[in-house]
Amino acid sequence: MNGARSLLTTLVGAGVNVCFANPGTSEMHFVAALDDVPDMRGILTLFEGVATGAADGYARVSGHPAATLLHLGPGLGNGLANLHNARRARVPVVNIVGDHATYHARYDAPLESDIASIARSVSGWYRVAARSDDVGGDAADAVAAASRPPGCVATLVLPADSSWSESSTGPCPPRPRTRPSIVPAETVANAAKVLASGERAALLLGGGAVRARGLHAASRIATTTGAALLGETFPTNLARGAGIPALERLAYLGEMAQAQLDGVQHLILVEAKSPVSFFAYPGKPSDLVPTGCTVHTLVLPGEDAATALEALAEAVSAPLDSAMPAPAARPDRPAGALAPDTLAAAIGATLPDDAIVVDEGNTAGLFVPGATAGAPAHDWLTLTGGAIGFGLPAATGAAVAAPDRPVLCLQADGSAMYTLQALWTQAREGLNVTTVILANRSYAILNMELQRVGADAGGPLSRRMLDLTEPDLDFVSLSKGLGVPARRVETAEALTQALETSYAEAGPSLIEAGLA
Amino acid sequence: MNGARSLLTTLVGAGVNVCFANPGTSEMHFVAALDDVPDMRGILTLFEGVATGAADGYARVSGHPAATLLHLGPGLGNGLANLHNARRARVPVVNIVGDHATYHARYDAPLESDIASIARSVSGWYRVAARSDDVGGDAADAVAAASRPPGCVATLVLPADSSWSESSTGPCPPRPRTRPSIVPAETVANAAKVLASGERAALLLGGGAVRARGLHAASRIATTTGAALLGETFPTNLARGAGIPALERLAYLGEMAQAQLDGVQHLILVEAKSPVSFFAYPGKPSDLVPTGCTVHTLVLPGEDAATALEALAEAVSAPLDSAMPAPAARPDRPAGALAPDTLAAAIGATLPDDAIVVDEGNTAGLFVPGATAGAPAHDWLTLTGGAIGFGLPAATGAAVAAPDRPVLCLQADGSAMYTLQALWTQAREGLNVTTVILANRSYAILNMELQRVGADAGGPLSRRMLDLTEPDLDFVSLSKGLGVPARRVETAEALTQALETSYAEAGPSLIEAGLA
Repeated sequence: MNGARSLLTTLVGAGVNVCFANPGTSEMHFVAALDDVPDMRGILTLFEGVATGAADGYARVSGHPAATLLHLGPGLGNGLANLHNARRARVPVVNIVGDHATYHARYDAPLESDIASIARSVSGWYRVAARSDDVGGDAADAVAAASRPPGCVATLVLPADSSWSESSTGPCPPRPRTRPSIVPAETVANAAKVLASGERAALLLGGGAVRARGLHAASRIATTTGAALLGETFPTNLARGAGIPALERLAYLGEMAQAQLDGVQHLILVEAKSPVSFFAYPGKPSDLVPTGCTVHTLVLPGEDAATALEALAEAVSAPLDSAMPAPAARPDRPAGALAPDTLAAAIGATLPDDAIVVDEGNTAGLFVPGATAGAPAHDWLTLTGGAIGFGLPAATGAAVAAPDRPVLCLQADGSAMYTLQALWTQAREGLNVTTVILANRSYAILNMELQRVGADAGGPLSRRMLDLTEPDLDFVSLSKGLGVPARRVETAEALTQALETSYAEAGPSLIEAGLA
Repeated sequence: MNGARSLLTTLVGAGVNVCFANPGTSEMHFVAALDDVPDMRGILTLFEGVATGAADGYARVSGHPAATLLHLGPGLGNGLANLHNARRARVPVVNIVGDHATYHARYDAPLESDIASIARSVSGWYRVAARSDDVGGDAADAVAAASRPPGCVATLVLPADSSWSESSTGPCPPRPRTRPSIVPAETVANAAKVLASGERAALLLGGGAVRARGLHAASRIATTTGAALLGETFPTNLARGAGIPALERLAYLGEMAQAQLDGVQHLILVEAKSPVSFFAYPGKPSDLVPTGCTVHTLVLPGEDAATALEALAEAVSAPLDSAMPAPAARPDRPAGALAPDTLAAAIGATLPDDAIVVDEGNTAGLFVPGATAGAPAHDWLTLTGGAIGFGLPAATGAAVAAPDRPVLCLQADGSAMYTLQALWTQAREGLNVTTVILANRSYAILNMELQRVGADAGGPLSRRMLDLTEPDLDFVSLSKGLGVPARRVETAEALTQALETSYAEAGPSLIEAGLA
């Protein structure tokens, strides 16, 4: 068999059986090998940012990596923003970047590009599969590297001749799986001592700590010790809803996060980073840790957060039944004009069981978390790395990973335009994604930021750079153009009904929520 | 004034008065300063690949750089593919990449990214504007670097505090302009000797050699000496049409290019690279220079090609009237089904005076150059770097550079989906762009490449990765969703009429040409 078939067989053997692909000429042998390795599901995307964002969403939901197939440096560049998000979220992704044949590089053909420099900016692991005989082992290493807790982007460059040449070695069996490390008992004991000190403490949860098991243990600790429970602003995959202890996330705005942390004397990091301001602002601090607060680390990325939290709960003698799961509660079906509050209520009133919510709602989605706090248990994926254009692709990947679960994508209009091509893949694959476009026809967050950075703003030329009118974007037409049925709603009643209709139907649909 | 205003004032002073922008929070002071420096025209794009491709198209037509405004590493990543094209085409572009405030970098906030690594893959010049006092000088240096012949991508990173802090120095006057070097007389004499040798010679023209002046001189040389006249496969901006000597471009397919070069004993490079295969293929050569052929360089990038060709024409005693301009000729108005030949005839029959054609037509556009060879003189911009998604943005920038000239964008359907957001900017700015989508609903070139690489292809799973059906893309809906009026045509008559209508109307329009 050739290198391409060896690669695909190795990937499938290691559990990587989905590939989000944008192939070009240098990837043709990989494409051809799809017919030989039918257990690999090739999913075509129309733009690389869709492929990489889908791989991110897929891994957040399934817990294991998908592959991407990208075309040289420019294809990797197109996928870079969502790889940045995956890197920040510590999500496993296996990039296969096709390249010219090794002997062709010296001719500096038009698509010759510095793949290594581009890839290294987002990759925790990088290798060139320089010989067809190595491709199987390289692929096994890539999957192992991506999957090593906490997870990273692993990029394997596949020169065309490594792909088309015969492999005398063939596929490679999977590498042994690395499990998360166990947090040392001493670290747990130290945290217990801090919690017993009587000084005001808070646990800040991120990474794998915000799944149901970790949240239950953390809630036991909080109710027993009085410690506050906080979550990172943009979690990778947060379990929430009825029956799961609620996690208050740190606010995006530094001033609000500072208010949440005010008075905390000990901040215990549980697979979370010490809190910093998302952006810098004149005269405002970057470091959000209160003056005099001591930062402790209970769980590092790559360690087993749930087990550590359970050990800490035992150490502080927290009763098993002391967790405080969120009660079931839904807002009433809203009426009237669509605004951030009625939009949130419509979503909270209708969210189906076991949903996956992909949240790139930005400013217009501000009230949705509150309105869904008591909805049936669900997962919440956020824009961890801040590179917009994550929502639609991530929802696509999430739906591939969990075909039987409803996926709700809350998508701000400005950000939607970065990777709108995802809708076509949703249509082709028949994915159960309901996309709600929060259409305020503005980069609303930037209007706010323009004031916050202290800029002397408000002139017509600068305002024009932040609005999305002239012409208005028509998401119903855009969605239909990509094969996804769509409608526009302008009242809370119409949105509520449109959501219910969409959840009841198979396949994707889009709702443009026209905000007043 | 602050650094941002110093920057904008410096750019405008150096002749850079258009900025294609995708701002984020770290760029808010730049945005605010647009109201203070109204001679800078800020043009909003909905995706960074549109901004960078527009800057490329703008510079190819105007001859001087536009600025882009991009948001940290992810924004630069989104713009990377079209910067790759600009790099390959040696087109001047001034990238302004906003970054976190300098003191914020150490906090590793979510959008912190390795801008330097990403930028260096495409930039001929790179600098961080580390202090607000330096911003003016840095901007002047960036424009000078981008503009230094033959032109390059210059990337200036603008930390937010360099932008918002006061600049005690203020704007900087433009640096002296660097002119193209004059080719040494001895080099011209050597070329003349080669041409006088009686051995079979060919001139291969690229870069600035393919404008009208260079083509006239080259044609004199060819008719006088019998040398063949060839052009690079994907020229940056080729002058052609009635009254301009025609240039036969090297074919994309290596086998066809080899046939064109067959028997050539001396290949004289005129701001062109020695010909290589675009991709590598099993058993096919990368280097397309015939065995035994000697390669000579008359003009290097950065040298004055037209002057060198005129000197060579004198050296070979080519009469002034020996150039062979292409005769005026148009195909008849075609009838019947739309196919590559009738599509080409429709375009040739209607192309207006002084048009700018942006050609990303790929396979379906194969016959258009032939059908327009005798059309009124026009400029032809091609996908020099091979990173698809160039056409719509480049047409946008070309129309900004030349508002009174008609711009025709020949855009393959698969490639169109990479940067379709360009249509919205065309609508907002009222640009005279006629886009023809060559809709064969397939990555047709990849179906061909699948055979050419020798892959044992044709299975249903691999074929599905190369077709654009299920669902069909509806470009009429997509275009309307972005504010550009559109229609679909399926006959040659309808296309001809739609083209005439579009040329006659102000503003953008799109024609989906449904190919049989």
